[in-house]
Amino acid sequence: MIVEKIKTDGLAHLSYFVGSGGDAAVIDPRRDIDVYVRLADAHGMRIRHVLETHRNEDLVSGAPTLARETGARIWHGPNPVAPVSYAETVREGDSFDLGDARLEVLETPGHTDDSLSFALFDRDFGEGAVGVFTGDALFIGDVGRTDFYPDRPREVAGLLHDSLRKILGLGDQALVYPAHGAGSVCGSGMADREFSSLGHERRNNPMLQIADREAFIDAKVSENHYQPPYFRLMERLNSEGGSAMQRFIMPPRLPADALTDGAEAQLVDVRSITAFAGAHLPGSLAIPDDMLAAFAGWLLDPEREIRLLAEDGRQAEESVRTLGRIGFDGVSCYAAGMVGGATQGVVFRTLPMVDTETVRRRLGDDMPNWQLLDVRSIDEFEAGHIDDAIHVYVGQLPEELGRLDRDRAVTVYCGSGKRAAIAASVLRANGFGEVDVYLGSIAAWKADGLRLAA
Amino acid sequence: MIVEKIKTDGLAHLSYFVGSGGDAAVIDPRRDIDVYVRLADAHGMRIRHVLETHRNEDLVSGAPTLARETGARIWHGPNPVAPVSYAETVREGDSFDLGDARLEVLETPGHTDDSLSFALFDRDFGEGAVGVFTGDALFIGDVGRTDFYPDRPREVAGLLHDSLRKILGLGDQALVYPAHGAGSVCGSGMADREFSSLGHERRNNPMLQIADREAFIDAKVSENHYQPPYFRLMERLNSEGGSAMQRFIMPPRLPADALTDGAEAQLVDVRSITAFAGAHLPGSLAIPDDMLAAFAGWLLDPEREIRLLAEDGRQAEESVRTLGRIGFDGVSCYAAGMVGGATQGVVFRTLPMVDTETVRRRLGDDMPNWQLLDVRSIDEFEAGHIDDAIHVYVGQLPEELGRLDRDRAVTVYCGSGKRAAIAASVLRANGFGEVDVYLGSIAAWKADGLRLAA
Amino acid sequence: MIVEKIKTDGLAHLSYFVGSGGDAAVIDPRRDIDVYVRLADAHGMRIRHVLETHRNEDLVSGAPTLARETGARIWHGPNPVAPVSYAETVREGDSFDLGDARLEVLETPGHTDDSLSFALFDRDFGEGAVGVFTGDALFIGDVGRTDFYPDRPREVAGLLHDSLRKILGLGDQALVYPAHGAGSVCGSGMADREFSSLGHERRNNPMLQIADREAFIDAKVSENHYQPPYFRLMERLNSEGGSAMQRFIMPPRLPADALTDGAEAQLVDVRSITAFAGAHLPGSLAIPDDMLAAFAGWLLDPEREIRLLAEDGRQAEESVRTLGRIGFDGVSCYAAGMVGGATQGVVFRTLPMVDTETVRRRLGDDMPNWQLLDVRSIDEFEAGHIDDAIHVYVGQLPEELGRLDRDRAVTVYCGSGKRAAIAASVLRANGFGEVDVYLGSIAAWKADGLRLAA
Amino acid sequence: MIVEKIKTDGLAHLSYFVGSGGDAAVIDPRRDIDVYVRLADAHGMRIRHVLETHRNEDLVSGAPTLARETGARIWHGPNPVAPVSYAETVREGDSFDLGDARLEVLETPGHTDDSLSFALFDRDFGEGAVGVFTGDALFIGDVGRTDFYPDRPREVAGLLHDSLRKILGLGDQALVYPAHGAGSVCGSGMADREFSSLGHERRNNPMLQIADREAFIDAKVSENHYQPPYFRLMERLNSEGGSAMQRFIMPPRLPADALTDGAEAQLVDVRSITAFAGAHLPGSLAIPDDMLAAFAGWLLDPEREIRLLAEDGRQAEESVRTLGRIGFDGVSCYAAGMVGGATQGVVFRTLPMVDTETVRRRLGDDMPNWQLLDVRSIDEFEAGHIDDAIHVYVGQLPEELGRLDRDRAVTVYCGSGKRAAIAASVLRANGFGEVDVYLGSIAAWKADGLRLAA
Repeated sequence: MIVEKIKTDGLAHLSYFVGSGGDAAVIDPRRDIDVYVRLADAHGMRIRHVLETHRNEDLVSGAPTLARETGARIWHGPNPVAPVSYAETVREGDSFDLGDARLEVLETPGHTDDSLSFALFDRDFGEGAVGVFTGDALFIGDVGRTDFYPDRPREVAGLLHDSLRKILGLGDQALVYPAHGAGSVCGSGMADREFSSLGHERRNNPMLQIADREAFIDAKVSENHYQPPYFRLMERLNSEGGSAMQRFIMPPRLPADALTDGAEAQLVDVRSITAFAGAHLPGSLAIPDDMLAAFAGWLLDPEREIRLLAEDGRQAEESVRTLGRIGFDGVSCYAAGMVGGATQGVVFRTLPMVDTETVRRRLGDDMPNWQLLDVRSIDEFEAGHIDDAIHVYVGQLPEELGRLDRDRAVTVYCGSGKRAAIAASVLRANGFGEVDVYLGSIAAWKADGLRLAA
Repeated sequence: MIVEKIKTDGLAHLSYFVGSGGDAAVIDPRRDIDVYVRLADAHGMRIRHVLETHRNEDLVSGAPTLARETGARIWHGPNPVAPVSYAETVREGDSFDLGDARLEVLETPGHTDDSLSFALFDRDFGEGAVGVFTGDALFIGDVGRTDFYPDRPREVAGLLHDSLRKILGLGDQALVYPAHGAGSVCGSGMADREFSSLGHERRNNPMLQIADREAFIDAKVSENHYQPPYFRLMERLNSEGGSAMQRFIMPPRLPADALTDGAEAQLVDVRSITAFAGAHLPGSLAIPDDMLAAFAGWLLDPEREIRLLAEDGRQAEESVRTLGRIGFDGVSCYAAGMVGGATQGVVFRTLPMVDTETVRRRLGDDMPNWQLLDVRSIDEFEAGHIDDAIHVYVGQLPEELGRLDRDRAVTVYCGSGKRAAIAASVLRANGFGEVDVYLGSIAAWKADGLRLAA
Repeated sequence: MIVEKIKTDGLAHLSYFVGSGGDAAVIDPRRDIDVYVRLADAHGMRIRHVLETHRNEDLVSGAPTLARETGARIWHGPNPVAPVSYAETVREGDSFDLGDARLEVLETPGHTDDSLSFALFDRDFGEGAVGVFTGDALFIGDVGRTDFYPDRPREVAGLLHDSLRKILGLGDQALVYPAHGAGSVCGSGMADREFSSLGHERRNNPMLQIADREAFIDAKVSENHYQPPYFRLMERLNSEGGSAMQRFIMPPRLPADALTDGAEAQLVDVRSITAFAGAHLPGSLAIPDDMLAAFAGWLLDPEREIRLLAEDGRQAEESVRTLGRIGFDGVSCYAAGMVGGATQGVVFRTLPMVDTETVRRRLGDDMPNWQLLDVRSIDEFEAGHIDDAIHVYVGQLPEELGRLDRDRAVTVYCGSGKRAAIAASVLRANGFGEVDVYLGSIAAWKADGLRLAA
Repeated sequence: MIVEKIKTDGLAHLSYFVGSGGDAAVIDPRRDIDVYVRLADAHGMRIRHVLETHRNEDLVSGAPTLARETGARIWHGPNPVAPVSYAETVREGDSFDLGDARLEVLETPGHTDDSLSFALFDRDFGEGAVGVFTGDALFIGDVGRTDFYPDRPREVAGLLHDSLRKILGLGDQALVYPAHGAGSVCGSGMADREFSSLGHERRNNPMLQIADREAFIDAKVSENHYQPPYFRLMERLNSEGGSAMQRFIMPPRLPADALTDGAEAQLVDVRSITAFAGAHLPGSLAIPDDMLAAFAGWLLDPEREIRLLAEDGRQAEESVRTLGRIGFDGVSCYAAGMVGGATQGVVFRTLPMVDTETVRRRLGDDMPNWQLLDVRSIDEFEAGHIDDAIHVYVGQLPEELGRLDRDRAVTVYCGSGKRAAIAASVLRANGFGEVDVYLGSIAAWKADGLRLAA
């Protein structure tokens, strides 16, 4: 019996390949499904079942494609918001046999109404589950968010509480296999570790230390979460059945000057923020490759053409793949680096990076033509920020530009400088003139022992 | 400017990726086209043109698939036997520009009426072609066969003669890029080397030493060639446009005993001939993996289900791929090795291997109930064989079984024992009882210094 | 925090790479250490510690090499049979910090006196160990063997009992990371699964169901185990510090006929047993590649030259690697397949495979000149064998040849036919004339519903 | 017969693996020799000979290591400047047989006195050489430099002339296999193509169009070449026999702030120049990874510790490898990106990039406190530069700092901005205050149609 974890970086998404005796199941497949097919080949197994712990809202499910190409059946829980057209329904107590392995279905609503968990048993060693696939109900060090049903927040938080008790009932010995690891937008308190057991969670997971049901609900409803607009697209695709990720054909590499022909395309610069700072194309958005999964869904329109500026072909390829996983198929071309374009006379801009000393000086000077912008989440802001900073979450900045004074210079900061650079590029693309980024941001501020406002 | 050679083993097929300055062409693509797409990605190039030197008869062309997935245009020569539905026509003197590279079209009929060659020029160093893609007109050490137009053999041989002179006219300096390398069924005299120039061929290629046109024609029409029945299928597919090779999904691995359920499937054993000899499934054909490209087209029916017995998953995978390249998509499952099946009680057979000493003894004993079968090509047979051997070419054995006496034991030989094992499995599958294989065959016979009949 | 499991097939050996925050430890490294170095590179970590759960007796430790190349320190438990010259001593309660991870030492003697376990804690989630590296004390589904101290069998079995209780004391939630998985010679009852927790083992592991200490001891001392002679070599090397595995230079491929020059070398045929049966070199031992780790140590002399007959270069390379891991560095050359040799006139032999029907018939005929040999372990033999079979364990066959009658034909069987083929090759190499192998062996016998003697 | 070309990017160094019938030779191996060993394994060949076309001055030869690990013999030409301690001498007319291949030695002095070429013959097709390995005598589109013997420039240029005639005497049909491709510091006129024949060179190579010996000599002695100081180190190592490249252990990744502890180490920033511009560590030299091979030898001291700032672990690894190939083994650690360091409060600097418009304006303003620096080669400068620019070659800048006025701001340019950024980092590290880089440089200047001074 094997359990293989497949991690998709950026999304911090975890899917699983479970197999025994020639038969296999895949749990929560991503859109580019080659990895599952290769695992089946390598182990001489046939994928019989595709199991979804819930309708994912943060990535395009690979279930319909995987089923079509392998002949597997797809199983989904009851009570979806919208019917999942490509799946059959499975309920509490149903089970799947794969060689010596048995997967038993638990209905575990809360994160969504249709959430399932799957308990894994080894029939040769059958006393108690050996593991459990918990979807977005239970993470390592955290539990799922419950903000998707704004009209009944306390009810769904209560459902999650009960679901977690049901899962814990499988026993301390069961290994935990969640649908996300650290770095996901689906839970901020996760451990920087991708292995645990129910017993270890029972003793360590902060949310499982809250014994009282009402107290648990109070804690959940007081959380703040952001829902990027592309969640709507994902939900639609994952009801209708998203198209297969096409056989991977990279869009062509063009000279940088060709990227700027035609004003309608969205220009995205996936290089590091320092490279963007050094020189970039006017109007381009800075979304470094490792932040694409988190912020493309906030800042890009999936219906419009996308052009990439990457450091090299490899970074471009990874970026095209990441965008495809969240349903952005519109990348039409890319350019590698800024030097080539510059030699052809392309116009470029720079974005100044400033340090703690500079920010302090400006604050001290009480400059009337200057404003300081904090683009972190509201939770982070409230836990401590620099005095007089305006708060707008980076994802919501395009809608909240009116909160800034266009006649004043802006310095942007976040936790490190990365989201700040994204935000600065949004400001620039929207006509703000004097913008710079506080590199190091709140972390550097703290490292210098400076005071935070609460 | 780059020229990348892509070799497909088994078929000894050579295709080429040519690119410069962001644009690329592919010459004679095979059916599984990922390799070309990956090359384009790696070099940041876009495939603009797919060029076919002729309608291939020995493999499924990847041109339609590659064009569909990349947007490239497909070009084919005039005068095809049947219209090539998916291609545009290109003629003598037409040319393609790719960055600094220019490909110029030469009509070079003979092997087929629609054969083209493509001369490669570097515009920065433009004195004379730097290379030429010769398709099946000129190989390294040999020239193309001219037996595809049985009603006008001398005419097409003459056409080839003239085409070769036209190619040589490009100058000694041009590198030669043929469509096949050593090991192909398309030419038996090829060098065991995949690089040459027109000058080196002009001085060394035996067929180019024949100065006189009529003498060249005489030489060509006296050659013997075999045309496996699947050539008809290839020709049809390569006119209509073969389907894409599906996303590669391995058929499942089953226990060996499951392979023998259902009598209609073709059982193919792709292990080494010694493994087949040690134990094999009754009724299975021995076609070792490295001989599949050459003999599946003779012995298997592309319309019927195929089941494989392989040593392991990797060998099965390679075999499925090779079969797909020549249009055999019907592999439904495979088993790995014979031991597993045997433990489940599956019935097995062995095939004795005999040595030179045994064959000599039998010949000396003048055994009335024994016959010796030579399954090599007629050319090989006529160049020297063991006295009293019956000759039937291995590919034609299913049709020529009547030439053997079913009441007598058979020992089969070839050049080494490999084709003999294939033939022996054909005999066994057709009810011949006492069959064995002379391992080492004619090579071992010669190594012992024994006499050959001519 | 990461834990990466590195499996070495054949030996079924499991080693681990544990890291956090830039620092890493390796537990029980194998001799070819590249895999650990690559993991450290990939994660930007430095290997600080090499931890040995005990002095391994079944493979060459990579600890000295890994420490030399990375600057790591090596730690070993107290009470080794012989001083471990290259290691420092660590004791109960000592610990190692790696970023957020902490490894705490438990002395867990029984399998060996120097056996250690290492409990893994996450300092951010510190209630209870999250995992434990158990070496050869606790496996998944079994526990370690205790036959290495023949003068005090009950004492060490009792020590193991106490060590297991100490390990279980870490709590049900701890994941179990043993030093061997299914297929190892170090434990026959292991699960076909490489993940578990202490809780799941507590509830399912048969040996942990024996509550009473004396009953546990009785069970352990009644087990039968074999110790291949190369264990002595491993023990010496792992005390002195074995040499590095040489940077990998394959021995050259030679024609098969060159393998038989010079009588002193040990000829090993690593192809499948059916390929060996089909044709093999006289005097060669059949040890299929996947059985090399288990049987080379019984049948080969590590001081003498070894020559391989493999199916191809890849199989030869894997075999050279496997042999190196257990200290056999003497491979001087290899040949690929038997066909090439046969064409050069090399002498070959075949080994008949017989089926259930044949064995039954012979038994029924009560043949006086025939004997049936069972080469499985004594436990397997006693659990049920074919009537009248002689029992000699395959590993001990070279020393026990006298138990067979050289004047009678021999049919060899085991569980499937694989060990039988090894044994048959030993008999042949020692001058036994008429030898064949029962392919399918006891499993086929049972599949036919035939009777076993107990 | 196979010829495999192994390209080492950065150095644009080409080495070759030639083999036939089980035996192989390697021509001009680089220091990290795994690639040759893997080729030998893959083809089942044994490396018998290591051939050096001359004592390389631009990289560390792998010949001694390769010979030590494979048992091959090393061959070098007569007349080395210093005895090559690890090689045997080979002379005109000597030859090496490898299966069907024969390599014949030609003495072809000029680039160096000990330069050899090796003509490749196929014994089965023996009329004329099929290829020739030309070392640094003949490149594709250029010929070797002849500036290494400053006391006899005309003599060695004449020797090269004669050597080229000798090589051309092999015939138009011979393929050309040089020791460098486009991008090498060893020849600036090379084609952007790595395949050619003697015939194509005879007709296209500009230097081969100069029929007259004296005219050829005049042309050669009027060339300008730079010799980076590390050439001396290479020459010494390649006489004495450089050590093996260590089995690859990456130096550890450290936080960026740790890189600046200890003033003695050389800080090298291998990220793109725009990333360097955006933020970098004070005192660090910008040498982007693809320019390390060309400029590390000018700007770094091989005896001193080196610390890298890279974008990620992969870029760091490639950089460590490239440095190792030219003898710089002193990399002690690396950091990934600038953001991490900034969050820890590390001090950083930015380097402004300016555009054509800015440079024009400054020139027009006739600014007294500003100077324009051209760091290209003297040939490039003389072919056209911006009016009033000071010329100092980037490699010689550390020695020529006195030519600049420290009280004036500096704008640096080159062909594109890359060498300018290197130079700017040198100025900064040497205390120049106001420095910026003209991104796009002379190419952008021309793209705007602006005037050049000659």
